[in-house]
Amino acid sequence: MTATIHKLRSERMPSLEPMLNLVSADLNQVNSVILERMQSDVVLIPELAGHLIAGGGKRMRPMLTLACARLLDYPGTRQHKLAAAVEFIHTATLLHDDVVDGSGLRRGKQTANIIWGNPASVLVGDFLFSRSFELMVEDGSLKVLKILSKASSVIAEGEVDQLTAQRRIETTEDHYLDIISAKTAALFAAACRIAAVIAERDEDVEDHLDSYGRNLGIAFQLIDDAIDYSSDAATMGKGVGDDFRDGKVTLPVILAVSRGSDADRAFWRDAMQGTRASDEDLAQATRLLHSTCAIDDTLARARHYGQRAIDALGSFPGSKAKSALIEAVEFAISRAY
Amino acid sequence: MTATIHKLRSERMPSLEPMLNLVSADLNQVNSVILERMQSDVVLIPELAGHLIAGGGKRMRPMLTLACARLLDYPGTRQHKLAAAVEFIHTATLLHDDVVDGSGLRRGKQTANIIWGNPASVLVGDFLFSRSFELMVEDGSLKVLKILSKASSVIAEGEVDQLTAQRRIETTEDHYLDIISAKTAALFAAACRIAAVIAERDEDVEDHLDSYGRNLGIAFQLIDDAIDYSSDAATMGKGVGDDFRDGKVTLPVILAVSRGSDADRAFWRDAMQGTRASDEDLAQATRLLHSTCAIDDTLARARHYGQRAIDALGSFPGSKAKSALIEAVEFAISRAY
Repeated sequence: MTATIHKLRSERMPSLEPMLNLVSADLNQVNSVILERMQSDVVLIPELAGHLIAGGGKRMRPMLTLACARLLDYPGTRQHKLAAAVEFIHTATLLHDDVVDGSGLRRGKQTANIIWGNPASVLVGDFLFSRSFELMVEDGSLKVLKILSKASSVIAEGEVDQLTAQRRIETTEDHYLDIISAKTAALFAAACRIAAVIAERDEDVEDHLDSYGRNLGIAFQLIDDAIDYSSDAATMGKGVGDDFRDGKVTLPVILAVSRGSDADRAFWRDAMQGTRASDEDLAQATRLLHSTCAIDDTLARARHYGQRAIDALGSFPGSKAKSALIEAVEFAISRAY
Repeated sequence: MTATIHKLRSERMPSLEPMLNLVSADLNQVNSVILERMQSDVVLIPELAGHLIAGGGKRMRPMLTLACARLLDYPGTRQHKLAAAVEFIHTATLLHDDVVDGSGLRRGKQTANIIWGNPASVLVGDFLFSRSFELMVEDGSLKVLKILSKASSVIAEGEVDQLTAQRRIETTEDHYLDIISAKTAALFAAACRIAAVIAERDEDVEDHLDSYGRNLGIAFQLIDDAIDYSSDAATMGKGVGDDFRDGKVTLPVILAVSRGSDADRAFWRDAMQGTRASDEDLAQATRLLHSTCAIDDTLARARHYGQRAIDALGSFPGSKAKSALIEAVEFAISRAY
């Protein structure tokens, strides 16, 4: 017997294609549920929700539920409603995030809070969040409800935690990992775990899928953090340097602060506190990030979690679904290159 | 057999005392659950949530769950967690409402959004909302989950609907009743209905309690609308004229617009659009409300719904709980006098 070691590849550009091919029929079903359930007699609701939901999101989280269901050869259709519920939670979070951050651009489009105002974004977020629970209740699994309600409160805790850490260059890498485990990775993990629940597999399978999703989520967020300093708005779909101007102490900053000179630290303190937020300051920040290898090593950390995600799938037999899930990790990482 | 007709009384000042006495032991349990479940390692969460939760709310909605459970002689303890879940939904809504309205004062204290900012209020609201679902999941009744998740999405729809109607003096009384049925009365109704579910009573009992709660909720909101123009900040715990300055087209305004002269309507249009928002304008608004009997008739409408709430309890045998529920309606109405 030969061991099968899946390593993050570098020879070619990985893509989401295998995942998309695997779940495309399911994803159409999910999109139908989403479109149907974001309706309301109050016309502003589908209008605003549709802007974000139809607006070119990758449907990463619902795809994970669908792909994990395929990995487990689950023969039913419960994943469709539940994947829609996951996407509604995610969309609600995005709407509230954009209000919290005062963002103006997401996925290359104006954000809902800019077009319709903060009040509407807050309330439509609440609506989608409630709708996600209605979908879960219709599915009827208390176990799924438990997993996703727990994930939702952990996400909110992570967001508040991040707010508390905002502008504080004293934030440690460990603390930052706690924050992104909560605000980003918890929903990735839950999206994967619920597939094992509906497929009625044992707790070990749940745990492995949870692990895959959680580590992928952390890798995904770290890559996003790196891209925020190294991409342009066209690639990223949001403004470059947004984190910098918002005083978000992400891993690149934490590494640059920890490795920098006293003068560098003074710069970062001022920058995170918003007194140095010009384009020139951003250029200076980018120089410091590169001279301290902070971007490279953020990517190295991301690869570490990506590798852990892939290894979490080790006990599953080879299949198209498994290959697609592995390549999804590689794709997530590759976005930074 | 003599018919028992409960009529709204006027001879003496009704109070919440009978309700408080009825449920005081239960309410202590609910408060314990609330305090325990608003905790988080992220210290800003209990700090901010505690400000509002400990800050002198009447616990009207959880008390309804508790009193209805007593009305049905329910012998268990499930109402404690569920009443806490109801209060969490309500608190989350208040936090988001204050952000949406930009309010500065609630229950006579500075609002959380003023003290900690809008972002924290939005996110802690999300946290409490998620926690409420975790509590329901622990209780384990899919029926209760269905009732409260539906109520939550209806509340959000009502809030968005109100946002859409804001500043529009063309809003009809029917439309306005739809809005407050959703944003206020839905949670009152659900708080009462779930008591019948845990007491395992039939659908008719559920419907009667739902009806009681819904009509009480509408009456409650209409009284609030009237008080906003006729009380002072000390009584109301929020600023008088807030609705006026926010351009909220409530029932008093709808009646005054419909009964007023062309000049009056022009005044209301300007006022609701924010171009006439001085203290003098508020005084003028109050004069118009009185000259058109708009306040008196808002109160008459409230009494109508209050009477319907009381009649919804008609099929329940006399008991301390029933008397307390009836007096709670009378109390709600009496706040305006």
